[in-house]
Amino acid sequence: EIVREADVYFTPSPLKGKKILVTAGPTKEALDPIRFLSNHSSGKMGYAIAEAARRAGAIVTLVTGASLESPSGIKTVHVRSARDMYDEVLKHYEEADAVIKAAAVADYRPETISSSKIKKTDGQLTVTMVRNPDILLELGKMKKNQLLVGFAAETDHLEENALKKLEKKHLDLLVANHASDGFGNDTNKITLYFSSGKKQAFERMPKKRVAEKICDALAGLFEMSGNE
Amino acid sequence: EIVREADVYFTPSPLKGKKILVTAGPTKEALDPIRFLSNHSSGKMGYAIAEAARRAGAIVTLVTGASLESPSGIKTVHVRSARDMYDEVLKHYEEADAVIKAAAVADYRPETISSSKIKKTDGQLTVTMVRNPDILLELGKMKKNQLLVGFAAETDHLEENALKKLEKKHLDLLVANHASDGFGNDTNKITLYFSSGKKQAFERMPKKRVAEKICDALAGLFEMSGNE
Repeated sequence: EIVREADVYFTPSPLKGKKILVTAGPTKEALDPIRFLSNHSSGKMGYAIAEAARRAGAIVTLVTGASLESPSGIKTVHVRSARDMYDEVLKHYEEADAVIKAAAVADYRPETISSSKIKKTDGQLTVTMVRNPDILLELGKMKKNQLLVGFAAETDHLEENALKKLEKKHLDLLVANHASDGFGNDTNKITLYFSSGKKQAFERMPKKRVAEKICDALAGLFEMSGNE
Repeated sequence: EIVREADVYFTPSPLKGKKILVTAGPTKEALDPIRFLSNHSSGKMGYAIAEAARRAGAIVTLVTGASLESPSGIKTVHVRSARDMYDEVLKHYEEADAVIKAAAVADYRPETISSSKIKKTDGQLTVTMVRNPDILLELGKMKKNQLLVGFAAETDHLEENALKKLEKKHLDLLVANHASDGFGNDTNKITLYFSSGKKQAFERMPKKRVAEKICDALAGLFEMSGNE
């Protein structure tokens, strides 16, 4: 703990005093009390960002669907479904200076949640899935002075999808990676797309370093926006 | 490690030299490279059984879909889907003296696995699910001298479902618990149903102790079967 505090103390603090909300991990969408739909997000990227933001002086709240250990010194709220995450994020949105949405929120959830375990039968099972709230899109609509940072993990047409998302969701910064580069790994290979049109590509590096690059980029945006 | 070995040394060895195959954890059934269907099994019960069987002198192979740390001194094979688990279990079945199937294998998998991430659209998404191989049922059919131990985690009609499963799958022993008692917890509250008709109910206890009770019961079955 002494080392950690020293770490905070001697690092420059480009995010000093900023209230930053970070979301991390997958969500789990229940089909019944036992089964759920989820995704391969480990939460490591979001946790690394939460820790990097804290090292950079920010006051961090982490809303997470991952089952990783809560990081020291960071207010951590565990959630399960996309709707839980949505509710929790909204609680903190108004007072936030920035939101970094690293969570891999499920786009769909089963239309109905069975209250008891669905017994298997011999035939097929058809599951109707409905759209979850698009948290980032909603935050983009409600945006006042907050800076919004989104992620795009794609298997195809990465740049095209990234630029579309940046615009559609009113993001200030989008972190794009190929799905196979990030999910479950300890490293990531990212490209940053800014609303200004600027683009910045990085080599593969540990998620801790990736997190620092994202915080640096965010600090730059705070500087430009005058919201210092 | 010295303590652990001593633990093995001073414990009576009711499963000495028995080859025991233990399955643990959930399986993950891919919908695309990012999304999957799974369940709330943590794998803790199966890992506790693998370790208890080893302490009781058995030669243990653990086939697991959980992301827990591999237990010391136990051959551990990681699998993802139900079909992966089925293939791996079959490889070890013929030479096994007993199989303890603690894994919560998905009954269903999406009929098709998309090779790229399914893009979200505004409407609903219908997923057709097909039955996975019923590993325990298949093992029951192929059974020679192996003892088979199954699990039933139910939300309703526990005893009725347990007795049905015991018979249908040609099990020697079935470990039943209410789904809310076991999943994700460090303790469990079980009832043992034997093919002889015997029934044994236990109070809630740590999974390590539950695992020992199951190994004791298995040792008793080996004794009775003369397969010592």
